[in-house]
Amino acid sequence: MNTIKTRVHLGDRSYTILIGSNILQLTGELCKEVLPPQNCVIVGDSNTLPLFGKECESSLAQAGYQARSWQFPAGESSKNLNSLGRLFDFLVESKLERKSFLIALGGGVVGDLTGFAAATYMRGIPFVQIPTTLLSQVDSSVGGKTAVNLPGGKNLVGAFYQPKLVLCDMNLLSSLPRKELSGGLSEVIKYGVILDSEFFRWLEVHLQDILNLDAELMAEAVRRCCELKAAVTSDDERESGRRAILNFGHTLAHAIEQVYHYGTYSHGEAVAVGQLVACRLSETLLGFPRAETERIANLLKIANLPVSVPAEDVQATIDQLILATRRDKKTLAGDPKFVLAEKIGKVVFGYSVPQKLLRETLFEFVRKTEK
Amino acid sequence: MNTIKTRVHLGDRSYTILIGSNILQLTGELCKEVLPPQNCVIVGDSNTLPLFGKECESSLAQAGYQARSWQFPAGESSKNLNSLGRLFDFLVESKLERKSFLIALGGGVVGDLTGFAAATYMRGIPFVQIPTTLLSQVDSSVGGKTAVNLPGGKNLVGAFYQPKLVLCDMNLLSSLPRKELSGGLSEVIKYGVILDSEFFRWLEVHLQDILNLDAELMAEAVRRCCELKAAVTSDDERESGRRAILNFGHTLAHAIEQVYHYGTYSHGEAVAVGQLVACRLSETLLGFPRAETERIANLLKIANLPVSVPAEDVQATIDQLILATRRDKKTLAGDPKFVLAEKIGKVVFGYSVPQKLLRETLFEFVRKTEK
Repeated sequence: MNTIKTRVHLGDRSYTILIGSNILQLTGELCKEVLPPQNCVIVGDSNTLPLFGKECESSLAQAGYQARSWQFPAGESSKNLNSLGRLFDFLVESKLERKSFLIALGGGVVGDLTGFAAATYMRGIPFVQIPTTLLSQVDSSVGGKTAVNLPGGKNLVGAFYQPKLVLCDMNLLSSLPRKELSGGLSEVIKYGVILDSEFFRWLEVHLQDILNLDAELMAEAVRRCCELKAAVTSDDERESGRRAILNFGHTLAHAIEQVYHYGTYSHGEAVAVGQLVACRLSETLLGFPRAETERIANLLKIANLPVSVPAEDVQATIDQLILATRRDKKTLAGDPKFVLAEKIGKVVFGYSVPQKLLRETLFEFVRKTEK
Repeated sequence: MNTIKTRVHLGDRSYTILIGSNILQLTGELCKEVLPPQNCVIVGDSNTLPLFGKECESSLAQAGYQARSWQFPAGESSKNLNSLGRLFDFLVESKLERKSFLIALGGGVVGDLTGFAAATYMRGIPFVQIPTTLLSQVDSSVGGKTAVNLPGGKNLVGAFYQPKLVLCDMNLLSSLPRKELSGGLSEVIKYGVILDSEFFRWLEVHLQDILNLDAELMAEAVRRCCELKAAVTSDDERESGRRAILNFGHTLAHAIEQVYHYGTYSHGEAVAVGQLVACRLSETLLGFPRAETERIANLLKIANLPVSVPAEDVQATIDQLILATRRDKKTLAGDPKFVLAEKIGKVVFGYSVPQKLLRETLFEFVRKTEK
């Protein structure tokens, strides 16, 4: 297949995203187009570096780069200031200078940690993203958000910082657990819902083939999502307005992740349920057609995503979910704002939802289980 | 005296510097002009917070801000990722949100640490600088450099980030040790040398009165330096070119600080000697007039600054100094670049100096001591 090239336009912070197959082995060559022959460090976790590290490193060496690798234990709990400090020490030890660069080889956690290190080491050095999950290919490749967690909350320390180059290799996705692929598809479907009804229809036709890992269709889906996200974020790089539409389904998703103690539901799975809650609220508040909610639910089900969450005590779980939405980082004065849909492809943001309506709606999405 | 108002123009990152007497007690009122009624945290060290914290906090409270204070042990060794982590935890505990702000109440270390925390907490919240030393008033108020140290080196992690407001209160300077005042004057004199011969002449007339803490003259000197630095840095916010002229005297100053294990010489004292070395090199390489070097040396002496450094073994010390210049963070491939003067008020940057000439020149500035 041909490699797809898409450009994110942000003035002197513009960069290229390359999407295709067999790209990892060309890392060195592709870096040479945008980065001088300096030393660099590949950052990955205990999942990604054993799988992909060697190929990346040898490609860089062939292209004349001096590359070292640094690994940390996979998982959200590694995304903290301690890991960051150890990474910085490794960068100093590796004699990285202002024109040296980092490569983030992994999913969202690797991208966030590496991006923040690149944003702040010597007040900013270049970095390249090689996202290894569908979720990070469609979501972290564009937008420039980098961060680490504090004991007090997720992503509380970070920077807006753009990569010099993003390489999305479809081959890497075939090594993913199916659950990871589904999680990514939840965000892919979201892009159709919020911005592009034609893309949504395209997904209705092709989703099954994507689940069967058809590389060309996967690449096309990644391209579409990256372009849609780029269009939104380049207008609003620092997240003051319209960028909020990307949070469709996320107000409740964050609450689900929290109430179910992370790990039970992946981010993408929580976003699937969150999107349907937002659709139902949109039916009541904006006249969003019920049939459209069904189309979205069908697509999520094909992608093996949940459309409700279980609870032993439905009432108590709903209470917890509502409380959690009021504690969201983006919440102003405890009033959670929702992104709601007018139709597939068109959403509005900053909606206050009456608590009574939210409670009623949640009854449909929290289903009773036996002990 | 009237308060002087000067504006640093950086597009949507522009801000105001206020310079005068009795400004600290107006902190709250002045913040209200640029910051919404949110909660805030005052960051200071074990020197500055006991001296000035209460007045700052009560002024903020009177203006309707909810202010808490956070203190760390004074000194460069506190400027690290550990302190930063503790500060972040305090910000979370104090429920600071995206529109909350920080106040840096102290010298360079406080400004650097607080500025970096503000640059990265929630990907950037506003901050106000209240520099409490002459050095930080003339040097850290403008330029947007924030940083912390790593075990491997100074200022290796940081961000370019602008304050919303800078308050320079001359009253705070009267509590400074004389040595601190002299250190600041070294940078003040530097601004005359690199950019403004008229300001240099003005200093020749008024330096003695400034040393006697004449508030109006001090404020005028601070204003002039801030404006000169602003003119240089707004052209070159991220330090790729002309901003390098601010490093006049600094290539050797960093070497002196390092060889004399920091603490023996303050930064300003080391810069005094470094400026004279640069002048002598400029005589040989650019025909800088010897009489001008004498004018600069005289001014530095009036400010009680050193014009040479002592050594038991002159040859060995010169070797160490030369080695240290080759290890400077800004050094490209081990070739230290110098800023040299053509005349007072006009300098050029990026000069390679033959090592033989540097060695010969240093013999004049490293004087033999008895054991």
